[in-house]
Amino acid sequence: MNVTVNGRTRHYRTVSFNARRNSVVLIDQRLLPHRFKLVEIPDFRATAGAIRDMVVRGAGAIGATAAYGMAQGARAFKGQSVERFENHLDRIFDTLKSARPTAVDPVNAMLQVRAKMAGGKSVEERQQLALDAAEAFAHEDIKHCSEIGRHGAPLIRNGTKILTHCNAGWLAFVDIGSATAPMYAAQAQGKRFHVFCDETRPRCQGGTLTAWELAQQKIAHDVIADNAAGHLMQRGEIQMVIVGSDRTLGRTGEVANKIGTYTKAVLAHRHGIPFYVAIPLSTID
Amino acid sequence: MNVTVNGRTRHYRTVSFNARRNSVVLIDQRLLPHRFKLVEIPDFRATAGAIRDMVVRGAGAIGATAAYGMAQGARAFKGQSVERFENHLDRIFDTLKSARPTAVDPVNAMLQVRAKMAGGKSVEERQQLALDAAEAFAHEDIKHCSEIGRHGAPLIRNGTKILTHCNAGWLAFVDIGSATAPMYAAQAQGKRFHVFCDETRPRCQGGTLTAWELAQQKIAHDVIADNAAGHLMQRGEIQMVIVGSDRTLGRTGEVANKIGTYTKAVLAHRHGIPFYVAIPLSTID
Repeated sequence: MNVTVNGRTRHYRTVSFNARRNSVVLIDQRLLPHRFKLVEIPDFRATAGAIRDMVVRGAGAIGATAAYGMAQGARAFKGQSVERFENHLDRIFDTLKSARPTAVDPVNAMLQVRAKMAGGKSVEERQQLALDAAEAFAHEDIKHCSEIGRHGAPLIRNGTKILTHCNAGWLAFVDIGSATAPMYAAQAQGKRFHVFCDETRPRCQGGTLTAWELAQQKIAHDVIADNAAGHLMQRGEIQMVIVGSDRTLGRTGEVANKIGTYTKAVLAHRHGIPFYVAIPLSTID
Repeated sequence: MNVTVNGRTRHYRTVSFNARRNSVVLIDQRLLPHRFKLVEIPDFRATAGAIRDMVVRGAGAIGATAAYGMAQGARAFKGQSVERFENHLDRIFDTLKSARPTAVDPVNAMLQVRAKMAGGKSVEERQQLALDAAEAFAHEDIKHCSEIGRHGAPLIRNGTKILTHCNAGWLAFVDIGSATAPMYAAQAQGKRFHVFCDETRPRCQGGTLTAWELAQQKIAHDVIADNAAGHLMQRGEIQMVIVGSDRTLGRTGEVANKIGTYTKAVLAHRHGIPFYVAIPLSTID
């Protein structure tokens, strides 16, 4: 999405790849909202380190980072032996996977990249396919979020007051975000609405990341203490809740998401407020 | 309650009075849990300042502080004119009241002190009665909390896991506290139980004050993010909720308390968990 730095507005993605320098380019999310800084990661081990150290977080974003990290590691391989190359890929896979052992997205992303690489015969062909596959993965992520926006925008009307929890915004994906996608789409349709961002203790991703995102897109918002949501609902100040999901059970629709999501669902149910979970199909197990 | 400082355990009250030096003695609650420090407040204007600056907070505690502040100001008066003395008392009343204009306890406390003072004829008699009345007010506060403990202790069984929100402990009263009173009484009966303290954003009184209190009394506890309570209830990890109240409507039983209390009540209702509000009758309007 657009970010304004020193008065200059430019489009950025959370994760991108510099093919010439074989580097992964990330927004350092640990510095937000105080400082906007891009970091260029020179090799796949450092890319794993960036996932581990929370430079980048969010299901979609770490999936794409792992996909790019796989391509980055593959492209750094010197030699012609396909067997040695595949062993090298195994090491990359394990390194990136262990950077966030609880996440499913990096694993799925890397499996997708490797499946496409298998279509190449030589090491060189596979290296080229790796980057194509990683770029395709990132592009798919953006497309999914864009579709969520298209489907979700009609739910938001002029004057709607929306509660969101944690960050399921573009910083958690490659671009656009899931829970925020309908907001950006509704804004593009000229609608005016207000967003309450739960602070989201203990790590405060709502207060730091979501609020920063909305400020950059000039969407009216307030950061609220997690404790305040019930009170606002009781007073009729919230008309819809929209959150993301880390993982979703396809059979039952059960959602695993940031601590506090369940509380907000119980509160919404109590007050008859619609509660939406905005997800790409990739989070369904 | 007992506090251990540098290995030495002593009993302290949140608020007390040094009659010889005509000073109000407070625990500086802004420094907890990192530092335990008593402060001695030399005159009624400084006592109002201590309420305003949150050196002392909590309904019962600021009520008793205002009662002592009234006695302190009355005792500092020099002269024999009852009329001038009463004008002086008006100034004290206004100064202490405006230190926390939203609170009802300081006003009720000071009215009680002044009503008893009216029984004296001379300035000197009224000055003596002021201190007696303030001490009686503090003593009543302790007695009420002690009664809450006696009534509430049977609700806690061996192994009960209790959730509490904010601080309705002895630091919010003169001693013992309201929500914590049943815990201390149950502990004295030899019961073992566990307390979850909501962090209580935005000011974190649960994380700083309640957790410190329980640690001092050696009661097993965890500080949890406010977001975690629903999840713990869902998992059956909480058997009862007990909170205090800032103000209570006598006709309907509606309770006004720290932001987030309502959310916990909705969650408790959803999970069929008993929810108790521990209050002295003085918080009923």
